[in-house]
Amino acid sequence: MHAYRTHNCGQLRLDHAGQSVRLSGWINRKRDHGQLLFVDLRDHFGITQCVVDTSSPHFKGLEDLRLESVVTITGEVVARTADTINDKLPTGHIEVKVRDLSVQSAADPLPLQVNSEQDAGEELRLRYRFLDLRREKMQKNILLRSNVIASARRRMIEQGFVEFQTPILTASSPEGARDFLVPSRNHPGKFYALPQAPQQFKQLLMVSGFDRYFQIAPCFRDEDSRADRSPGEFYQLDFEMSFVTQEDVFAAIEPVIHGIFEEFSGFTGTRRTVSPYPFVRIPYAESMLKYGNDKPDLRNPLVITDVTEVFKRDDVEFKAFKGVIEKGGVVRAIRAPSVGDRPRSFFDKLNDWARGLGAPGLGYILFEAAGGKGPIAKFVPEAAQAALREVVGLKDGDAVFFVCDQAGPAAKLAGLARTRIGEELDLIEKDTYKFCWIVDFPMFEYDEERKKVDFSHNPFSMPQGGLDALLNQDPLTINAYQYDIVCNGVELSSGAIRNHKPEIMYKAFEIAGYPPEVLEAKFGGMLSAFKLGAPPHGGSAPGIDRMVMLLADEPNIREVIVFPLNQRAEDLLMQAPNGVTPDRLKELHIKLDLPKPKITTAE
Amino acid sequence: MHAYRTHNCGQLRLDHAGQSVRLSGWINRKRDHGQLLFVDLRDHFGITQCVVDTSSPHFKGLEDLRLESVVTITGEVVARTADTINDKLPTGHIEVKVRDLSVQSAADPLPLQVNSEQDAGEELRLRYRFLDLRREKMQKNILLRSNVIASARRRMIEQGFVEFQTPILTASSPEGARDFLVPSRNHPGKFYALPQAPQQFKQLLMVSGFDRYFQIAPCFRDEDSRADRSPGEFYQLDFEMSFVTQEDVFAAIEPVIHGIFEEFSGFTGTRRTVSPYPFVRIPYAESMLKYGNDKPDLRNPLVITDVTEVFKRDDVEFKAFKGVIEKGGVVRAIRAPSVGDRPRSFFDKLNDWARGLGAPGLGYILFEAAGGKGPIAKFVPEAAQAALREVVGLKDGDAVFFVCDQAGPAAKLAGLARTRIGEELDLIEKDTYKFCWIVDFPMFEYDEERKKVDFSHNPFSMPQGGLDALLNQDPLTINAYQYDIVCNGVELSSGAIRNHKPEIMYKAFEIAGYPPEVLEAKFGGMLSAFKLGAPPHGGSAPGIDRMVMLLADEPNIREVIVFPLNQRAEDLLMQAPNGVTPDRLKELHIKLDLPKPKITTAE
Repeated sequence: MHAYRTHNCGQLRLDHAGQSVRLSGWINRKRDHGQLLFVDLRDHFGITQCVVDTSSPHFKGLEDLRLESVVTITGEVVARTADTINDKLPTGHIEVKVRDLSVQSAADPLPLQVNSEQDAGEELRLRYRFLDLRREKMQKNILLRSNVIASARRRMIEQGFVEFQTPILTASSPEGARDFLVPSRNHPGKFYALPQAPQQFKQLLMVSGFDRYFQIAPCFRDEDSRADRSPGEFYQLDFEMSFVTQEDVFAAIEPVIHGIFEEFSGFTGTRRTVSPYPFVRIPYAESMLKYGNDKPDLRNPLVITDVTEVFKRDDVEFKAFKGVIEKGGVVRAIRAPSVGDRPRSFFDKLNDWARGLGAPGLGYILFEAAGGKGPIAKFVPEAAQAALREVVGLKDGDAVFFVCDQAGPAAKLAGLARTRIGEELDLIEKDTYKFCWIVDFPMFEYDEERKKVDFSHNPFSMPQGGLDALLNQDPLTINAYQYDIVCNGVELSSGAIRNHKPEIMYKAFEIAGYPPEVLEAKFGGMLSAFKLGAPPHGGSAPGIDRMVMLLADEPNIREVIVFPLNQRAEDLLMQAPNGVTPDRLKELHIKLDLPKPKITTAE
Repeated sequence: MHAYRTHNCGQLRLDHAGQSVRLSGWINRKRDHGQLLFVDLRDHFGITQCVVDTSSPHFKGLEDLRLESVVTITGEVVARTADTINDKLPTGHIEVKVRDLSVQSAADPLPLQVNSEQDAGEELRLRYRFLDLRREKMQKNILLRSNVIASARRRMIEQGFVEFQTPILTASSPEGARDFLVPSRNHPGKFYALPQAPQQFKQLLMVSGFDRYFQIAPCFRDEDSRADRSPGEFYQLDFEMSFVTQEDVFAAIEPVIHGIFEEFSGFTGTRRTVSPYPFVRIPYAESMLKYGNDKPDLRNPLVITDVTEVFKRDDVEFKAFKGVIEKGGVVRAIRAPSVGDRPRSFFDKLNDWARGLGAPGLGYILFEAAGGKGPIAKFVPEAAQAALREVVGLKDGDAVFFVCDQAGPAAKLAGLARTRIGEELDLIEKDTYKFCWIVDFPMFEYDEERKKVDFSHNPFSMPQGGLDALLNQDPLTINAYQYDIVCNGVELSSGAIRNHKPEIMYKAFEIAGYPPEVLEAKFGGMLSAFKLGAPPHGGSAPGIDRMVMLLADEPNIREVIVFPLNQRAEDLLMQAPNGVTPDRLKELHIKLDLPKPKITTAE
């Protein structure tokens, strides 16, 4: 018989009855019935009930052991009586009668309970992560993450992608977020940086001729914690392809993302539907108008309409809006369907909510068969109301809410109102993953503060229309081959067809006000590569952690990462970060430069 | 028609003749035949010959483009005439008649040639790695690495292992090699460390109940470069299992390693055999005796024999050996089969080689039918010679070489002599991967310098015999459940059944002279985990880079890593490490502490 187990704790069934078996695991729970002691033995695979009576020399031993002790139990599988069968447990038709016991590891008193879903608080959970991870929910979440990653890998390989490991000790990136730095021992005064993303390396792989790259890539940003981003490190499904158009990139990754979401869509217990692909493509400008942002939650059926023209009409006398419109503002409308029977408080609450965000409120008109009602209605005569009905698609019993401001803030508030109204009316579709691509991001934007044109997002995306557009078009009208993939209002990743032509790169930087020297100093390596034969290429990098959070329906990233740093970027279990000896610092040619201690006056 | 390609450059065959196609790739080679210009277009998948004649508007364009420019060629597939078919090329039965050309990227003059196997020197190759990687050999090597890793993953998953990502920003490890450090922004004066290996995390995963862990794990050591280890980072197939004995670990990983080596054993062009599993297990002591080291190359059929007893005989008068034996030394013998017809210079050369290593030489006896010959023979009478023949297994025509020294140095020299003789006699088996496990490593050793007992290898391996052995046995006779896997003389990894019992850990540290406080201060996290229910567990971590080097038959690790650092730990392409601004250092609470510049006297 094996030293530790003949079966795992999730394996035994009625047809094992009579067999002599050996199980090893943690004592999950004990129930002392006087003459009988029941022990639920748990391992990664399940739970098996073991039983011992007072006649056994092991009764006392098991009775004395604390929960979470690890034991090996040898005994006979016996069928449970009909009244003791537990249908909730796959092993619930049997129990193991203890014949022999050996203690692998006796547990001290527990700082947090493993067999309970009670929240012990983040500090304790992370300090004793090895206990926290034994809990059923965490076992499932962490396995989900592993399975999602394995599925992603399999699907990428099926799509002809090859995985490469790009360097983790690399150069400081001159743009983007803050790098983590690593002092060099052999090169005094110099530092490596951990990659914020393998962006340059994946592009270099394309220039190296490797056609289709992917990597479950660790990325590092020295940024403060957010609920959806771990401080320190995170993972993305990084990929890049050569000789492709934007549509080729979409066609390659859509089956992968769709497949992953389909595969794990039942994780929370309710199977969710997944948008069929090709996913809908929404131009950036349209998304800003219809959803108020560039990451629309398409589970919400409401869309925003521009009704500026209606409020411009001579017969509309609503001065508050007209004044804003005259200064270049816009009026956006959100339909609230079938709210005719809602009490006045429904409308007031929405108004209060908007005021809470600093807006003057949400104007609205409630459309009844008899005509428009509500505070604004009297300023909007019947003909104009009919125009509104037409533009917004209103029916009797619908209301329409208005946001009036300059385009940017109007879009933002309208977007929030759309979500709020959708939630209030319980319109958000449940149990579904709705995907879309946001495309046609503007290449440049006007920086109001610095009074100049600058890059909107990524300076290395290919402008639509190429060099010709840069030379002959108003920069603010040029779009880039840049795209985001969005699911249920969560941006999974940005991507782009890259600008692989030095002459277009020089021109784009010139438009944004950067002389060639800046480009050459900051991105010399890439530029030199692009001058020695570069293929057209593009890609993206959906966030692994975000996909797992969506699938697990967990709002906090620390629920889907096995050993996360806490919000102060500390590992409480391994004591990181920590002090190091002066010798080590000397060897790295650095010394500490600590903030001056605050001087407190002695009382 | 697709913007860039209807087919890749390795795809077209005779049955495509007549089709209009589009290809994109790099200009690998051009051959100008006056009226005709042949262009070999290359992409990741292959090479296709394209042809254009002077009547084409694109003749001049193609003629002017430099090698490695990227172009898209549209044209008709035509069958080659019988005399121009190239059987070496999968596309060698056709060529593409250029109808249209578009230049995606015109290349500047090349700093190194892509279409040649000529070595451009490491500096240039790494500075222009994106060109170096386009070379056929590098494309193959890097793909091999990717395929080996994908195969390892697939096989580990088939064996029931689950992949986890352990943290890369973690705590400084108090033992082992030098860590890379990362200054913390939020915690002045504190540092993260990059993991030398995920050793503690994988053990914590077992304590967390995850049964079978693996990871293609990036590991970081701030050590100087070696041919078989990249400075900076390297990858290992890290794994760990719960509730297992040493034999379970072997049984889980053998099919994986064997499978990988079988799968890629033909990479170099000659298919190699792979040891069937179970691989032979060789106790450490036996390996030191028979092979002179703990990583035997079993392709060499020679084994070392101990012949001390023969030289102790009263009838043997060889004082040089007897003197050493009296001081506790040993005599080791290596058979050199069928060397009767070798000239005297063969023996002299081996003697010179040994003297070059600082040894007094290699004594030897040549056994002929008439009796022993050679410088030592006269001191060894016939009866003793018969004993030698018996012990070493000598036949007429064989010689036996002797090494006489204290056990340690004798083993080492005998091991080297075994290799040397095997090579001289061309006895090393070719085209085979011979695996073995080295087992039963001693737990402790006597540290001659510090005059104390210390750990031999890993303090966290389980001693054979457990606490009982520690309490009741001479520590120097205790073996550990520690093992190495060795292939063709290369150690792929160490591994062990871990010590998961605090009481055994305290005792083992006590024997090695460390008080409980040392253990608690350095490994408090692990120790606290082991006190809250730890399963017996063990694992190993075969080196990915070494496996790929063996399969690719490359002695230099930089041939199998896509973007390696150079030997001075620099990335010449991305300029890492590099200087950073004082602001960044301030933010990290450090300042530079540079070595004083050397003062040179002006002439």
